[in-house]
Amino acid sequence: MIIDCHAHVSAPKAYWAYKAGLVSHRGSHGRGMLRISDADIVAAWNAREMAPTGHLDHMAACGIDMQCISPRPFQMMHSEKPARIVHYWTEVTNEIIHRSCQLMPDRFVPVAGLPQAAGDPIEDTLPELERCVGELGFKGCILNPDPYENGSAKAPPLGDRYWYPLYEKLCELDVVAHIHATGSREPEREPYTLHFINEETTAVYGLVNSTVLDDFPDIRILVSHGGGAIPFQLGRFDSASARREGERFRDRMRRLYYDTVLYTPEALELLIKVVGVDHVLYGAECPGVGSAVNPDTGLTFDNIVPYIKSFDWLSDEEKGRILEHNARRLFKL
Amino acid sequence: MIIDCHAHVSAPKAYWAYKAGLVSHRGSHGRGMLRISDADIVAAWNAREMAPTGHLDHMAACGIDMQCISPRPFQMMHSEKPARIVHYWTEVTNEIIHRSCQLMPDRFVPVAGLPQAAGDPIEDTLPELERCVGELGFKGCILNPDPYENGSAKAPPLGDRYWYPLYEKLCELDVVAHIHATGSREPEREPYTLHFINEETTAVYGLVNSTVLDDFPDIRILVSHGGGAIPFQLGRFDSASARREGERFRDRMRRLYYDTVLYTPEALELLIKVVGVDHVLYGAECPGVGSAVNPDTGLTFDNIVPYIKSFDWLSDEEKGRILEHNARRLFKL
Repeated sequence: MIIDCHAHVSAPKAYWAYKAGLVSHRGSHGRGMLRISDADIVAAWNAREMAPTGHLDHMAACGIDMQCISPRPFQMMHSEKPARIVHYWTEVTNEIIHRSCQLMPDRFVPVAGLPQAAGDPIEDTLPELERCVGELGFKGCILNPDPYENGSAKAPPLGDRYWYPLYEKLCELDVVAHIHATGSREPEREPYTLHFINEETTAVYGLVNSTVLDDFPDIRILVSHGGGAIPFQLGRFDSASARREGERFRDRMRRLYYDTVLYTPEALELLIKVVGVDHVLYGAECPGVGSAVNPDTGLTFDNIVPYIKSFDWLSDEEKGRILEHNARRLFKL
Repeated sequence: MIIDCHAHVSAPKAYWAYKAGLVSHRGSHGRGMLRISDADIVAAWNAREMAPTGHLDHMAACGIDMQCISPRPFQMMHSEKPARIVHYWTEVTNEIIHRSCQLMPDRFVPVAGLPQAAGDPIEDTLPELERCVGELGFKGCILNPDPYENGSAKAPPLGDRYWYPLYEKLCELDVVAHIHATGSREPEREPYTLHFINEETTAVYGLVNSTVLDDFPDIRILVSHGGGAIPFQLGRFDSASARREGERFRDRMRRLYYDTVLYTPEALELLIKVVGVDHVLYGAECPGVGSAVNPDTGLTFDNIVPYIKSFDWLSDEEKGRILEHNARRLFKL
């Protein structure tokens, strides 16, 4: 069985229309109503959007049995004002994720968005996290390290005490935080797809060089896209850590988990070798950025299971951990 | 013979004292005088600073015959005001590089700093570039993609017309631009060592997704630290490019050159395989961030020649290109 730990919700057009209204009336119409039938939801999972086929067909084409589904990050608008439209939008998104998982419980595992309105205390996100986990059975949440969305200000680094109430709640609720940035307000220099990578690099650096992993030894943090630049750039940070007392950067970074949303065999190989089999979770974000057809292979870039299966330096048991069992262990499935 | 394409100047204490004055009097004392003897310069190259030994001894320990030496980037203070202290400091730095190369012409190749005072037109850097190349025989320059140094503003992306006068001058003078950011004014979240990586990632993305490589087909651009995250994250950008008309990201990124300042064998292997033997230049920044002793090996992290020599999937001739001949070709040595 193959579990894709990094996938995003496919939703009906009415959901996007609801967002169009929110960013126009800015909450002056109130929360409003979003009426979506179960049939609309199922239809959205079959509609052709980013992949050559619909979401469910694309999962099948990539050999995926089950996905952890979270909000589509670049759409989460954490930097929009006023904060209440961020809350409305996040809550509606989580409800569609929840209903999708109820309709297809063998296919989907719910991962929540947090209403991280830029500039607000992280405590303001905790009621929604508690609702999702406690009432709706979500198994984790997305953690956006930059709610300002590459805007005029920067959030505190992930080692800052600002984030501690969230870390405490994650441990109390016993769920995973999946690090993933959202949009970019500066698309010319750093569009969102690039911002994701830079923010993951900064996030891992910030966590590893802080007391978070000491203060929360049981916290389970998954980093998107193979950890940004960190596994590739490990040497420079490991060398810097060797000048100081204490645990090496290499060892501390292996306390986090990394998904395989990378799309080349060279990168997959490096990731697995650098962070170790037990800290890599298969993820492909199907459909998503990798769903274009690779002219060299005739398959989509995100069709990476064949790469992992072809690695003769991994045993079948190790491949099973990457493709399924690490996700079961981390998300408690 | 082994040429390290990425190294930074070692300089006498009087040089740092000069900087201490500049950032205090802010130019109100004028340019001032910096008197350094040849003996002081040679002594600095033998003084123990970042490595277990002096600079020259550390080169020998790492098997390096020759280095391209440029300013120590994190010290270049491009974001300081007024702009004239950036110019004074850059000019003095280039003079020390020049004199070091005159004193040890078999060991060092000069690469200039540019006085990229934040917010000023790039044209303001061209007289110093012309002086260094035309009068002093420099073979290239450092190009800082973020003169604001992770400050309150952002420089235009490298595909922007802002940079075109520099690109024209580089082609006219027939010298290399080596991309390397300088300091960071936000060290808690993104210290300079991390800022380098994020800026290289952004730089490669910006160049590849622009018209620069079409408008300047002969430009020679070398990217520090193996290109930041890009070779590791190639798949996502390559997939995005496959949705559009035109050359693929993978092929366009191979029009740039990358140094090997990475420090792990996994990263070196990925870099060489992804960008190709002819676009990789040995660089180790000896001494620098990698000069701490690796407890696993007893050698410094930046002692990477043994890794490259051990790659049995490269021929001796290919290793020679990476270790020497690509640098000769790119820098016209």
